Amino acid sequence: MEMRPVGHARTPFGDTAEVPKGHGTRHEAEGVLEILPEFAPGLQDIEGFSHLYVLWTFHRAEGFDLTGVPPTDDRPHGVFATRSPRRPNPIGLTVVQLLRVEGAKLHVRGVDMLDGTPILDVKPYLSNVPESELRRGWLAEAEARRR
Amino acid sequence: MEMRPVGHARTPFGDTAEVPKGHGTRHEAEGVLEILPEFAPGLQDIEGFSHLYVLWTFHRAEGFDLTGVPPTDDRPHGVFATRSPRRPNPIGLTVVQLLRVEGAKLHVRGVDMLDGTPILDVKPYLSNVPESELRRGWLAEAEARRR
Repeated sequence: MEMRPVGHARTPFGDTAEVPKGHGTRHEAEGVLEILPEFAPGLQDIEGFSHLYVLWTFHRAEGFDLTGVPPTDDRPHGVFATRSPRRPNPIGLTVVQLLRVEGAKLHVRGVDMLDGTPILDVKPYLSNVPESELRRGWLAEAEARRR
Repeated sequence: MEMRPVGHARTPFGDTAEVPKGHGTRHEAEGVLEILPEFAPGLQDIEGFSHLYVLWTFHRAEGFDLTGVPPTDDRPHGVFATRSPRRPNPIGLTVVQLLRVEGAKLHVRGVDMLDGTPILDVKPYLSNVPESELRRGWLAEAEARRR
């Protein structure tokens, strides 16, 4: 399966070490999703959505690990139970808040990808999981252990 | 960018016409995400999460349209403001509820992809957007017009 960028992210992060991660991280950084001119018509009516899913590639990741110790814990977990960049398919997923649209530039809050990251897709965020049903597995346990 | 399946979805839907869509659709269908044996170790500790993101491919979609009329409206919108399968990169995203894990099989509720759909990635669903901040753009408008 071949994928191609539909745009690139402009973010404050030049290196993975600069991206906030780990416990209690809040992604408040602002950035711009620059959609390529040829795909700009696909943005019609996007301004009405408060939040968007952004699919992108961990373009600096090479290879993958099926288990690993995430920054939020001191124990290993399976890659599909973490947000590790070293995934079989290195696709990142971020929910961002849409601040404003300027032509083919989406100004957003909540970026956590590197500057220059290729964007694969943008989708509207439509609904939440009921809070009463949400369980956060090992992450909630790791947080509890730290308290 | 090359992507490869890490598994396949088993769902009740043999054809796109069978997948519920449009107004007020609730995705309650149960299905199984069958992860390939070589990637099974990546599922470690996934059972603690109530909900998962599933990234998959619209493997029967060919080509894309930058604008189109979705089943939820009678007006066209940009592809990045819809869930249309005809996307520049045909990646689908579904939030499912994890019912139980049986080896490398994830039994889930909320599938909306076709039987046999290649799965690209599975990630834990960790948090909601605050309800007070959520706006649903043209979709909310289309719903209001129908009332």
